[in-house]
Amino acid sequence: MRKDEAHKPRVVIVGAGFGGLYAARELRRAAVHLTVADRRNHHLFQPLLYQVATANLAPEEIAQPIRVILRRQKNAHVVLGTVASINVNERKVLLRDGELDYDYLILAAGAVGSYFGHDDWKTWAPDLKDLKDALEIRRRILLAFERAEREPDQVKRDGLLTFVIVGGGPTGVELAGALAEISRHVMVQDFRAIDPREARILLVEGGTCILPEYSKDLSEKAEAALKKMGVEVLNNSKVTLVNQDGVFIGNRHIRTDTVFWAAGVRASPLGQSLATPLDRTGRVLVEPDLSIPGHPEVYVIGDLATLLDHAAHPIPGVAPAAIQMGRHAAQNIMRACEGKPSEPFRYFDKGSLATIGRANAVAVWSGQAIRLCRLERMVGHPHFLPDRISEPTRCDL
Amino acid sequence: MRKDEAHKPRVVIVGAGFGGLYAARELRRAAVHLTVADRRNHHLFQPLLYQVATANLAPEEIAQPIRVILRRQKNAHVVLGTVASINVNERKVLLRDGELDYDYLILAAGAVGSYFGHDDWKTWAPDLKDLKDALEIRRRILLAFERAEREPDQVKRDGLLTFVIVGGGPTGVELAGALAEISRHVMVQDFRAIDPREARILLVEGGTCILPEYSKDLSEKAEAALKKMGVEVLNNSKVTLVNQDGVFIGNRHIRTDTVFWAAGVRASPLGQSLATPLDRTGRVLVEPDLSIPGHPEVYVIGDLATLLDHAAHPIPGVAPAAIQMGRHAAQNIMRACEGKPSEPFRYFDKGSLATIGRANAVAVWSGQAIRLCRLERMVGHPHFLPDRISEPTRCDL
Repeated sequence: MRKDEAHKPRVVIVGAGFGGLYAARELRRAAVHLTVADRRNHHLFQPLLYQVATANLAPEEIAQPIRVILRRQKNAHVVLGTVASINVNERKVLLRDGELDYDYLILAAGAVGSYFGHDDWKTWAPDLKDLKDALEIRRRILLAFERAEREPDQVKRDGLLTFVIVGGGPTGVELAGALAEISRHVMVQDFRAIDPREARILLVEGGTCILPEYSKDLSEKAEAALKKMGVEVLNNSKVTLVNQDGVFIGNRHIRTDTVFWAAGVRASPLGQSLATPLDRTGRVLVEPDLSIPGHPEVYVIGDLATLLDHAAHPIPGVAPAAIQMGRHAAQNIMRACEGKPSEPFRYFDKGSLATIGRANAVAVWSGQAIRLCRLERMVGHPHFLPDRISEPTRCDL
Repeated sequence: MRKDEAHKPRVVIVGAGFGGLYAARELRRAAVHLTVADRRNHHLFQPLLYQVATANLAPEEIAQPIRVILRRQKNAHVVLGTVASINVNERKVLLRDGELDYDYLILAAGAVGSYFGHDDWKTWAPDLKDLKDALEIRRRILLAFERAEREPDQVKRDGLLTFVIVGGGPTGVELAGALAEISRHVMVQDFRAIDPREARILLVEGGTCILPEYSKDLSEKAEAALKKMGVEVLNNSKVTLVNQDGVFIGNRHIRTDTVFWAAGVRASPLGQSLATPLDRTGRVLVEPDLSIPGHPEVYVIGDLATLLDHAAHPIPGVAPAAIQMGRHAAQNIMRACEGKPSEPFRYFDKGSLATIGRANAVAVWSGQAIRLCRLERMVGHPHFLPDRISEPTRCDL
């Protein structure tokens, strides 16, 4: 810390996802010493990870180094490091290899994949949370087609050309749609012994419909769009076993070499170190101003926080909510620095969006169901960070 | 194989580098059943690998799926597989998981890195042969700066900001230049505690000068250009030990956390299975027509072959030579199919090129030493394969 910064309040932000980064930018003119800690050197535009997994985008197209984003923000310091826990009494963030003292903390550590107690399934069914996962899924998709091309046995070949995606939320829906598209359209001319259009793509949802968090009308339209693309949508279908031969859906066995997991999410385990009540999925029950009980200097935002909006609906785990919470927590910290009381958070629902394939998308804008949008619209999304293209490569993949 | 192809001669090409791919394209109108086998699904523009390592290019910008390159060539079949050995008596290519029968073989398996008997050094000093290596080197460069930013101890910080590149051939020269450039210019504003311009970059060459295969004038100009960029060039300097603390150059210890190996190359071990004489570095001594003694149906080309040109100079291990050899071997196979005798190979030296940083390059075109060329010129290089941009991502990184 430079001398002129020594007297300034120290703000630490853990996690440079949407929430953490927007909190940092909100503090750009504040007289604080700001540290942003993340275990990766890059911010990820997570809604487009499935495009990397299906080889439509390069990893660098959806990632940007955190240092580049905050380059001109002179009060911001970036630390690459893994946070092990938080000591709220001593006001310390404990890294694996060091520690950071804070006066104010914004914890924005997000969520991790959950296999509902079957973590051993991950070997056969990777999930899609970061660029490494996306490249692993891409590798498995490409390898399955390559192996099918050389496989003389019909049963084995069918297994290689069967793809099962577990979970009918936005990630599963997008992945199924994009996979259908590359097998039906992109790879058609590239093989001699197989026809990639014969690939079976199954989307398995445990509940009564896909995209359950959206309206019934919308989830029906999404299902129809997927079916038109050749995806088999299996609702009310619970996966009971995943192994190297395939999956069991109830008692029914489906032979497949390639399974992807898009079913479960739980909050970052960092929430546990706060010693404050959590919900069933590990999210922190925050106060209306986004702080935690008894610690007005600790804010928890994004997918790690849970809170009801003014209409008593839970605030969804989406990027716009994380961004709004990040800004609000930053504003409350600035208020505290000026000796003013904090204000409660109020969520404004701008609508959300799920893409299916390149040409279709299911969108809800302010509650209205519409199908339009191409991929480009998502990239041009207001939440996408600027100067993305200029420095795309300095990410540690 | 389809029925209409059953009577056609079977040509197998092992390796889809420059030599193998140009051989395949030369055979595009030939009445043969062609199989191209490679252990990767993509062709790599290897001369620009250092740009991926230094985070100037994304992996997908220098790689292209082999199937996409050969998509419209109806007689070509692509096999993703690792070749274990060649059985020249039974005319079989033995894969790890299968085999391919051939009537004619073009072996273009290239070269691998060599640590001169110190393979244990690879842990501390990765080499730069494929995209995985390039991403690992990128990761180490970025991580060294990140760790230096957080390191309070001056000696440790200096070690983190010292980069040693072993080997003053084109790869070492290009890597040193690009690393100097990103530390001097690109990353300057991104750190608060360190100044990336303070990074020390050492290029260690065992011989009397860098770029020894080029003219004296040229290697002097390259050395002057590197020095101007802040690179320390150590000629007549042999690395005697590499470990986690750094390197020994003779008896002198240099503390460094980051060493890259660009010193040695040996031919693919596949040459050994041909039971024909090899040179000291494992390259196959081919006949003037590029076939091997006693097997006029087996051609060896590119970095795996060694042959003297008409002026009794060894043909260099560069892309243009591999391309010319690939075309020539293909033409000799077409001659053989027509019952004509094979013709001897004649190398035409178009000149070669090494880039230093973005703005400088040392080039020899037809023997004339010139310094000009920007990176763009290399990408627009006549040997660069077309439609590179259209399908960049379907590579198994």
